[in-house]
Amino acid sequence: MSVPYASKVFPATTAVNDAGRLEIGGCDVADLARDFGTPLYVFDEATLRGQAEGFLREFRSRYANSRVVYACKAFINVPLARYLAGLGLGFDVVSGGEAAVLRAAGADMATVDFHGNNKTPQEIAQAVEWGVGHFVIDSFHELRLLNETAGAAGRVQPVLIRVSPSIDPHTHRLTTTGVLDSKFGFPIETGDAEEAVRQAMAAANLDLQGLHFHLGSPIFELEPYTEATERVLRFAARMREHGMELRRFSPGGGFAIAYTEDDEPPSIAAYAEAIAGALTEGCAANGLPPPELTIEPGRSLSGPAGVALYTVGAIKRVPGVRTYVSVDGGMGDNIRPALYGSRYVAVAANRANAPATETVTIAGKYCESGDVLIHDARLAPVQADDLIAIPASGAYAPSMASVYNLNGRPAIVMTSEGEAALLRRRETYEDLIAQDAL
Amino acid sequence: MSVPYASKVFPATTAVNDAGRLEIGGCDVADLARDFGTPLYVFDEATLRGQAEGFLREFRSRYANSRVVYACKAFINVPLARYLAGLGLGFDVVSGGEAAVLRAAGADMATVDFHGNNKTPQEIAQAVEWGVGHFVIDSFHELRLLNETAGAAGRVQPVLIRVSPSIDPHTHRLTTTGVLDSKFGFPIETGDAEEAVRQAMAAANLDLQGLHFHLGSPIFELEPYTEATERVLRFAARMREHGMELRRFSPGGGFAIAYTEDDEPPSIAAYAEAIAGALTEGCAANGLPPPELTIEPGRSLSGPAGVALYTVGAIKRVPGVRTYVSVDGGMGDNIRPALYGSRYVAVAANRANAPATETVTIAGKYCESGDVLIHDARLAPVQADDLIAIPASGAYAPSMASVYNLNGRPAIVMTSEGEAALLRRRETYEDLIAQDAL
Repeated sequence: MSVPYASKVFPATTAVNDAGRLEIGGCDVADLARDFGTPLYVFDEATLRGQAEGFLREFRSRYANSRVVYACKAFINVPLARYLAGLGLGFDVVSGGEAAVLRAAGADMATVDFHGNNKTPQEIAQAVEWGVGHFVIDSFHELRLLNETAGAAGRVQPVLIRVSPSIDPHTHRLTTTGVLDSKFGFPIETGDAEEAVRQAMAAANLDLQGLHFHLGSPIFELEPYTEATERVLRFAARMREHGMELRRFSPGGGFAIAYTEDDEPPSIAAYAEAIAGALTEGCAANGLPPPELTIEPGRSLSGPAGVALYTVGAIKRVPGVRTYVSVDGGMGDNIRPALYGSRYVAVAANRANAPATETVTIAGKYCESGDVLIHDARLAPVQADDLIAIPASGAYAPSMASVYNLNGRPAIVMTSEGEAALLRRRETYEDLIAQDAL
Repeated sequence: MSVPYASKVFPATTAVNDAGRLEIGGCDVADLARDFGTPLYVFDEATLRGQAEGFLREFRSRYANSRVVYACKAFINVPLARYLAGLGLGFDVVSGGEAAVLRAAGADMATVDFHGNNKTPQEIAQAVEWGVGHFVIDSFHELRLLNETAGAAGRVQPVLIRVSPSIDPHTHRLTTTGVLDSKFGFPIETGDAEEAVRQAMAAANLDLQGLHFHLGSPIFELEPYTEATERVLRFAARMREHGMELRRFSPGGGFAIAYTEDDEPPSIAAYAEAIAGALTEGCAANGLPPPELTIEPGRSLSGPAGVALYTVGAIKRVPGVRTYVSVDGGMGDNIRPALYGSRYVAVAANRANAPATETVTIAGKYCESGDVLIHDARLAPVQADDLIAIPASGAYAPSMASVYNLNGRPAIVMTSEGEAALLRRRETYEDLIAQDAL
C-alpha cells in the first residue's frame, strides 16, 4: 500500500509506502539504493513522458505546425535519447559530442538542430557529414566556415540564424543569453543580424530557412517571449528585402520549473499560449506566412523527472551555529548550488512521513566548504545510513557532473511501474584512469 | 633561438622563439597544438620539480623532520603520481578514487594521508585494506566506523584528528575551511576536539599520532598559519592529560600562487619560515617534543606548472560594448572563473611578441553566458586559429573538469627539454558513452 506524495517538486508518481519510504515510478528508494548504490539519479518515466507529451499537446493544439526538440545540454545519454526519440521529439545539440550520442542512439539526424557560439571546424565538418538537420549559425566565422564545408561536401546545408533581440529575461546573470552584451547571436540592434541574413542568402551552400533566439534560463515570465517574438518577427518581415522567407522560427527554450515549493513557474499551457499567440499575431501583423515553430525544452522536460538520492554519513552539530548533515555526493554530481546559488529542497526518503522538524545544512563529501547542496534545509531528524532525496535534479546536475576529488559519477536509472532500468552505470575506479597514459 | 619569457605567472622554462611563439619546456606551442590538439593542458616538468624540491628544501632546511605530501585534489592521475612519488613526495587523498589512482601508479600507500569530512564505509574499508598510512579523522561517525573497520581487519590504524582552530584566512567563502561554521574538523572551542581525542585514545584499533588542521585556500597571509599553529599546539599540550603524544603535526596546505601579475603570494621560504618558526617556538613554549611536520601543497605545486592552450574560433565585436573572443574550451575544463570569480591572464601564444593592445572577453564554447574564462583580458589582436595560453592552470582546472555540453575533457601533456609526454589522452566520443546502458 502506498499513498501519493503531494508535492509540486517531486515527480508525478512519487508515493509513500507503508514503511514510510518514498517510491518513485513504483520503486522503493531503499531498494534502489541497495541495488544501484548512492548517490543515484532516478528518472521517473511517467514524468518524462508527461512533460514531453505536454509540450507536444499544448503547443500543437495552439499552433499545429509545432516541433518540440529536447535541449540535450540539460542531460542526454544513449538510452535517454532513444527513449525521447520514441516519444516523437527532435533534439537540439551544442557540440559534436551531443550529436555523437544521438547518432549512437540511432536518432534521425535530420531532427537535430546544432547550436553553439563557437562550433569548431571539426564539429562542423562532422555534423555536415552526419546530415544534421539544421545549423543555427551564431557568428560570421561559422557562416563562412559552414558555407565552405558544406560546399566541399557537395551539400546545401539548411540553417537558421541566431539573432539577439536585446531582451533581458531577469534570470541569473550567468544564464542570460539574449541581451546585447552576450557572446551569443547576431544583435538586431547593431545591424549584425541583417548582415548575417545578407551573407547567408548570398552563400551558395547555405539554405537560410529562418531565425532562432534564446533568452536564457530559467525564465519565470511570459513577457520576454512575447516581446522578443514580436521584435524578431518585425525583423523577419524586414529581411524579405534580402529575399529571406521565414519558414522556421524558434524562440528557444528556458522554460522554468519548480525547485522549491515557493517557485511558481508558468504552466506549459501558459508558455504555449503566450508563444503561439505572439507568433500568430506577429505573423498576421507583419504579413508573414506562419512558419514552422520549434521549441526547445531541456530543463523543463528532464528536470522535474529526476530525483537525486544520497546516503547520510557524518553529522556535525555546532551548537548555536548549524548542523551539517553530510551525504555521499555533492558538488561533483550537482554543481548548481555552488555555481548559481540554486536552491533545492530535501526529504528524508526513508522517513517520508516524519515531520520536517529540523533545520540543517546538507553538505557533500567534497573537500571544499562550498560543497553544500542545501543551506537551511527543513528535514526530519536523520542519522547515518538514512536516505536523502533531492527532487528537480534531472537537468544540469548529471550533465554538469565532474569527477572532482576523483569521486566517480553516479549511476542513473529510469523507473516505471515498479521496474528500474539502468540508464548509466556508476563510474568505477578503472573508469577514472581510462584516459591516463599508463 | 628563443629568449626567456619574463612573467611570474608562466612556468619557469617559458620562452619565445624566433617565430614569436611561446615555448614551454622547450616545446613550441604550435607543435603541441598540432600534435595533441586543443584545448590542451601543458605541464612544465621543470616547474613541477622546482616547486616540489622547493617545498622539500625550504621546509627541511628549517625543520628537518618535515614531510611534503601532494594534495591530490589539485590534480592527480597515474603518470603524475609516479612522477611526484619519484621526487620524494607523499600524498594526501580525499577519496577512494584518489587512493585508487595512487595504487594504480604503484605509490607506497604508507605515504598516503586520507582526508575528508564524509568518507564512506566502503572507502574506509578499502583504504584500511590497502594500508593507507594515516587517516585524518574528521567526525565522530568516522572515528567509530574506522575503529570498527580496523578491528575487523585485525589492524591498528594510525590516525590524526582534524581540529578546527576557528581561524579565518580571508580567502573565498567557498574555500574557507578552518572556521567554526564549517563542515570540516572538530572545533577546539566547542570541546568536540577534546572529546575526539578522548575517544580516539580509548579506541582499541586506532593509534592517535597527532593533529591536523586546514584553513582554506589560497591563503596569501602568513599570520593565519602561525596563529593556528600556536592555538593547536596549546590544545595538543592540554591533550597530554588524555595520554595523547603529539608525534605528527600538519597545518595543511592552501599556499597561494600568482594567477595574475598583480598577485603577490608569499614565497615557499616565507611559508616555511612562518610555519617552522611557529612550530618550533610553540613546542618549546608548551614543553612538547617537536613532532614530524607534514605540509600539503596542492595548488602551489601543480598550479604554476600548468598552462591551458586554446584555439581561437569566433570573434564577436559588439561596438561600444565588448569584443568576445571565443575559444574551443571553457567552463568545462576550467570552472574556476564561473564558480569563484577567479581571475586569469592570457597571451596570444603564437604572437607572443605582439603588444597586448586590445581589451577583450575570452569566452568558451559552452552554451551558457557564464562560460567566460577572462573578463577584460589584455591581449594582442587575434584572429581565428590563433592560440591562446592561460597560465597558472595546473590546479583545480583539469581536476574539476566536466563533460558538460558533452565536450570531451582535454588532453594533458608534460613537457621537458623539448619533449612532450602524454599524461592523459583527450576524451573521445566513445569515452562519453562508456558508462551508458546501450
